[in-house]
Amino acid sequence: MAIRFAKRMEGLKESEIRELLKLTEKPEVISFAGGLPAPELFPIEEMKEISKIVLEESGTQALQYSTTEGFQPLREKIARRMNSKNKTNVTKDDILITNGSQQGLDFAGRVFLNEGDIVLCESPSYLGAINAFKSYGSKFIEVPTDKDGMIMEALEKILEVTENVKMIYVIPDFQNPTGITWTLERRKKFIEIISKYEIPVLEDNPYGELRFEGESIPSLKSMDKKGLVIFLGTFSKILCPGYRLGWTCASQNILKKFIFVKQVADLQSSSISQREVSKFIDLYNLDNHVKKINEVYARRRDLMLETMKEEFPEGVEYTYPEGGLFIWVELPKHLDSRIIMKDCLANNVAYVPGGSFFPNGGTENCFRLNYSNMSDDRIVEGIKRIGLILRKYMAVKQNI
Amino acid sequence: MAIRFAKRMEGLKESEIRELLKLTEKPEVISFAGGLPAPELFPIEEMKEISKIVLEESGTQALQYSTTEGFQPLREKIARRMNSKNKTNVTKDDILITNGSQQGLDFAGRVFLNEGDIVLCESPSYLGAINAFKSYGSKFIEVPTDKDGMIMEALEKILEVTENVKMIYVIPDFQNPTGITWTLERRKKFIEIISKYEIPVLEDNPYGELRFEGESIPSLKSMDKKGLVIFLGTFSKILCPGYRLGWTCASQNILKKFIFVKQVADLQSSSISQREVSKFIDLYNLDNHVKKINEVYARRRDLMLETMKEEFPEGVEYTYPEGGLFIWVELPKHLDSRIIMKDCLANNVAYVPGGSFFPNGGTENCFRLNYSNMSDDRIVEGIKRIGLILRKYMAVKQNI
Repeated sequence: MAIRFAKRMEGLKESEIRELLKLTEKPEVISFAGGLPAPELFPIEEMKEISKIVLEESGTQALQYSTTEGFQPLREKIARRMNSKNKTNVTKDDILITNGSQQGLDFAGRVFLNEGDIVLCESPSYLGAINAFKSYGSKFIEVPTDKDGMIMEALEKILEVTENVKMIYVIPDFQNPTGITWTLERRKKFIEIISKYEIPVLEDNPYGELRFEGESIPSLKSMDKKGLVIFLGTFSKILCPGYRLGWTCASQNILKKFIFVKQVADLQSSSISQREVSKFIDLYNLDNHVKKINEVYARRRDLMLETMKEEFPEGVEYTYPEGGLFIWVELPKHLDSRIIMKDCLANNVAYVPGGSFFPNGGTENCFRLNYSNMSDDRIVEGIKRIGLILRKYMAVKQNI
Repeated sequence: MAIRFAKRMEGLKESEIRELLKLTEKPEVISFAGGLPAPELFPIEEMKEISKIVLEESGTQALQYSTTEGFQPLREKIARRMNSKNKTNVTKDDILITNGSQQGLDFAGRVFLNEGDIVLCESPSYLGAINAFKSYGSKFIEVPTDKDGMIMEALEKILEVTENVKMIYVIPDFQNPTGITWTLERRKKFIEIISKYEIPVLEDNPYGELRFEGESIPSLKSMDKKGLVIFLGTFSKILCPGYRLGWTCASQNILKKFIFVKQVADLQSSSISQREVSKFIDLYNLDNHVKKINEVYARRRDLMLETMKEEFPEGVEYTYPEGGLFIWVELPKHLDSRIIMKDCLANNVAYVPGGSFFPNGGTENCFRLNYSNMSDDRIVEGIKRIGLILRKYMAVKQNI
């Protein structure tokens, strides 16, 4: 007799992409595949000082169990920061601390999704969210996007004819994987539409503060009058990912469910990590730290885009991100980025093939590039190598 | 239109017990209600030193994303420790790092349980596990226990007549809430039975190392030849809970599913916490630290039991735990510990009413006492107060 697993486990298969990404971990590979922050910007000296202070000032509390909702002073600081950066009007009582925003994504699936429920998302969308929702048996309808974000006419049409849309998942700021940011007009229209249909919205905002140019645009959460928008934030990209701290901000009736789930899922997030990050915000200037990050990432984005312009053959399209971590590349329809990736790996350079970002599959002529985690010289060298390979593939087609 | 949540959320209600326990958090309350370790034993000075070393030696890795499975050197140390303490024969590849063992409990529910599946557990059993499994829509059959652990004849009878038993959840060492430890004979018989039926077993072992007297008994995991036993461990009770680090040890076919779930649930546990705990094990003697904990807890257990002997009225029964954190008290059947708890709170003393530890309810004449978290004088004073209240309730009955 074989061990019988739950039905929901059938959807979770060995990810082809995960296996591929393991090959990118060798040090000789110039990898644009991950979504890792630049480690050279981590505040190591500051955190050394801070861990000492936290353990001196409140060692017994930092090492003990604490509340499920999270460390109150940290929740207060998050609420204030959101009100300033994301134009919301929230308090600590609207905030639950989670293990990165990935846990907020997973909890959203757990709180809302029955087997067969439909999630709407941008096409393409974030792989980690897609997998979390799939693990609850959800189906997806992909809403078309353009350079201004989700296309509202498409969204309306889908909502008009579709029963059982349970949740809409979006990343309006520097989207993963495209780097695209929704315009204010799109956001306003979106809130109008979802207010009419009263569908919960998961606004995933890990990159919002990583803006290199232009003005930041108010969050969906800030425009929501009906308590439909659940906002996910994280310290992974503005401080560092190692503490695994993020947050969920939602109206009381929804947040209460997330807190129940947090209680059974792992009781609480780390007491000491929460106190350390909270103390960092007290003693250092997080805004200045983010500014430092943005200067480096902006330079790397520019360098990557410039090199792409020179090295990528004609007919290859890509986005221009005003912030965040990613550039999205589209090849002519007949090319398959999974096949090209094998050539890339043989030349010690890597990206993420785009297919996995489409929950319903079927689109393979695109890939995602990350510019935050590689040094200037490796960015230039890596893009040159990809460019050479792309030229080869483009040439083959032309010769047919 | 109200927001529609997933069906599974219907089972998760505001816990009466959680509301009650909030009242025990006032400093003037002598609370035997929690399951908190003694904070005065936390290695604060050591962790101060360690956090400095970890950030100096490997700051960029400690603050960066890491692998889903967990920090390899820590997994190696856990495997070695299990092989020594729990008589297993496992390697790092059998270990997944989780956020405390609560996350392992929740993952087990997620990996195995469909709506309506049956979980067998000891009667009574751990509240946090019951709630995690219930959140996946499981049903429970409670297997009777005595002072030697689960009663094997009862287990066999249930398995003979019950379809769809998907998982058996047990805490064989210093059980929560009873403090009872299974004898070697019971364990052998248990393995014989589950090997026949081939049902996965969740062996929850947060307290195994907290033995004050007698010889430790091999884990179920160590006797399992069929890869059916999933072992859950944690640093919360042998080091401190603040880092939220535990582990799941299981055979490859099962562990693979847990790793999938960890990936979608929160990507990974904290990189820096894992490195800090790993470094503690390198630089300090965890065995000596556990010995220190056991000396203090043994004294507190003795003091609590002695005071109970003097102060509790005749007719009140309680367990004698050889280790762990808890004593389980049984009152005459007509008494309801929830009602008595109100009197206790009015006298600034608290325990956990026992009803919540029975997944199917219906037993209210018992409560759980924790002795690890209170000073000697408060233990004596608190037990005296409870004794006085119990005498009053016992007297009322006699007068009827």
